[in-house]
Amino acid sequence: METTLERPTIADWRTYPQTAALTSLRPQADRLDLVWDDGRVSPFHHQWLRDNCPCGECVYAVTREQVLEIIDVPADLAPERAAIELGYLCVHWSDGHRSQFDPGWLRAHAYDDDSRAERLAAHQTTRVWRRDFEVPVFQHDQLMEDDSALLEWMLALRDLGLSRVDGVPTAPGSLHRIAQRIAFIRETNFGVLFDVKSKAAAADSNAYTAFNLPLHTDLPTRELQPGLQFLHCLVNNADGGDSVFVDGFAIAQALRDEAPEDFRTLCEMPIEFRNKDRRSDYRCLAPVIALDARGEISEIRIANFLRGPFDAPAERMEALYHAWRAFLSLTRDPRFRLQQKLRAGQMWCFDNRRTLHARTAFDPASGERHLQGCYIDRDELLSRILVLQRGR
Amino acid sequence: METTLERPTIADWRTYPQTAALTSLRPQADRLDLVWDDGRVSPFHHQWLRDNCPCGECVYAVTREQVLEIIDVPADLAPERAAIELGYLCVHWSDGHRSQFDPGWLRAHAYDDDSRAERLAAHQTTRVWRRDFEVPVFQHDQLMEDDSALLEWMLALRDLGLSRVDGVPTAPGSLHRIAQRIAFIRETNFGVLFDVKSKAAAADSNAYTAFNLPLHTDLPTRELQPGLQFLHCLVNNADGGDSVFVDGFAIAQALRDEAPEDFRTLCEMPIEFRNKDRRSDYRCLAPVIALDARGEISEIRIANFLRGPFDAPAERMEALYHAWRAFLSLTRDPRFRLQQKLRAGQMWCFDNRRTLHARTAFDPASGERHLQGCYIDRDELLSRILVLQRGR
Repeated sequence: METTLERPTIADWRTYPQTAALTSLRPQADRLDLVWDDGRVSPFHHQWLRDNCPCGECVYAVTREQVLEIIDVPADLAPERAAIELGYLCVHWSDGHRSQFDPGWLRAHAYDDDSRAERLAAHQTTRVWRRDFEVPVFQHDQLMEDDSALLEWMLALRDLGLSRVDGVPTAPGSLHRIAQRIAFIRETNFGVLFDVKSKAAAADSNAYTAFNLPLHTDLPTRELQPGLQFLHCLVNNADGGDSVFVDGFAIAQALRDEAPEDFRTLCEMPIEFRNKDRRSDYRCLAPVIALDARGEISEIRIANFLRGPFDAPAERMEALYHAWRAFLSLTRDPRFRLQQKLRAGQMWCFDNRRTLHARTAFDPASGERHLQGCYIDRDELLSRILVLQRGR
Repeated sequence: METTLERPTIADWRTYPQTAALTSLRPQADRLDLVWDDGRVSPFHHQWLRDNCPCGECVYAVTREQVLEIIDVPADLAPERAAIELGYLCVHWSDGHRSQFDPGWLRAHAYDDDSRAERLAAHQTTRVWRRDFEVPVFQHDQLMEDDSALLEWMLALRDLGLSRVDGVPTAPGSLHRIAQRIAFIRETNFGVLFDVKSKAAAADSNAYTAFNLPLHTDLPTRELQPGLQFLHCLVNNADGGDSVFVDGFAIAQALRDEAPEDFRTLCEMPIEFRNKDRRSDYRCLAPVIALDARGEISEIRIANFLRGPFDAPAERMEALYHAWRAFLSLTRDPRFRLQQKLRAGQMWCFDNRRTLHARTAFDPASGERHLQGCYIDRDELLSRILVLQRGR
């Protein structure tokens, strides 16, 4: 086969080290089965290969984005010839186009069962925790200066969903700089930074009162709940006002194990959450437990004080209350609850879509309590992690 | 029954006009069946009624948020007595608590089949369109000054998903003021406002080139695609560069009608979208068509140039390509495509999660083309609509 082997256009910022070599190929009616030197066989459909041709005609080199749309080639396009040359898969298509595929890239995107299972396993980095969890603590100045410390913090947020940062300056607004080490802040109707203190008659949320606030996620009333929540303590001299955390994934998993019917109900039956004041009126209809495209528990949505009346078929109402009560009971179960008082200069940072948080009642007459908070979305955390991992 | 009837604490900013009167109640083992003067019978379970008690002990009057958590009362709590008094439902619970329910509120939240069907119908405001759609046009100055014009515009965005605004000042940044009539802007890695023009070698997206850009949604690489997209034309003198729009809900519906297997495939099989440059690396795994909690088509996610290689079980790969090709073909189907060139001082505003947009190729040597854009999330649009509707 007369192919001039060129390094294909780089269609990606990632690199794909070659972990296995191609040894042979077996043409099939609709695909090529590629055989690797560790014995794995990976099918690649003709359509798939043509669609992913990395040549400069199919991918625009500057942006590394695809230009070809697969409907511009016939659905039955097939290779005229295909061979492995210098380790690369080389295909001459029946319409004259030629494609070359890097074996490292092919292996990384192979969709035989073993390759898919490997990728899925690499995605499963979540570690659930209970009351005895030792919250990982990071130092503000180190996070500001050192990218590898920053990466460790972000991995803890991704995998554990709860962290504490110490040594944060107590000047109002200090939160802004440390949050921006990850990414820009997500603004909401409560502002870019929000102040958590007792606002008495001006309170527009139970968060801004002094009473006990049950375990919840913030802004369940939005289609996309904020990903990371930062809570920075400027002063906390009042009696009470402890922080309480529960790993929502741990209690959802407990529900799945102990009461699978209730678990299913909370995955399937949507609930309305509402938040309204003079200038806003948010509503969101969604289930308490969300599963991702891979079927894993990916999100908890709960705040009793922002919940609308249940709207479900009458014959399912009992089942819904049964499941809801079971979940609320788990939020109070001592097996899962971690309680700690935040001191001035300390900051919680947690996955707001996983880690439920609460505040015990405090006595505003006994001292001052002032926290500042902000949000960053999960997309930004994951992107920043991938960028910092590139260099490794 | 000795009840002092008081107007219950207002637990909501909304008002609930009384559209029917309660005539009698029929106690059942687990619920009360309430009978209305139009013959409708609405079951209300004991748990549901107790959970929604609007009294000042159960709801904090200042924030209008619930304080009671239903697990604080027994699951088998039942009325000791229940009666209709002065049109209100009054309940004395077996634990001594008393609740009174406004009939307008009860009717608005009843969950018998008829009441639920009525509410569902009221939610279905989407109107799909095709190539012959007459895009609604609004005047910038009127939107800036007049809240009812603003409301009309927002309703068009909610229900039709496409609008044009004329008379926008052509000074850079003018977009900001008109967008903020709706809400704060959603920042992304492309900034608060982004500039769309040919950036040649500095392009970090195919959007920033001069070539044909196929129909797409913006930022399918984010878990929550931006809701509203604004595209404001400062200058457009180059040859070409027309805007093309397709109602994604219309083509998804056509697919559902014409090829239900393909429709199901695109609802069920997630696809990875990717966007990466030197400073970011976003990935999102989600299906092309999303259905909401009520089963309605609620979102389209597509951008061929940001799509990762399909990662699906080998035996489903053919089905996925079949469905993907069918959907891409519909984006090119002349039945659905609306094409128009935007002039300086005009602005598109559309539902980015519904209305696919594209740009025909243009010749950067023939003249200048400069658009500015920004995003606002769907939650903010819907909230603002509800607030402006309150006064009506």
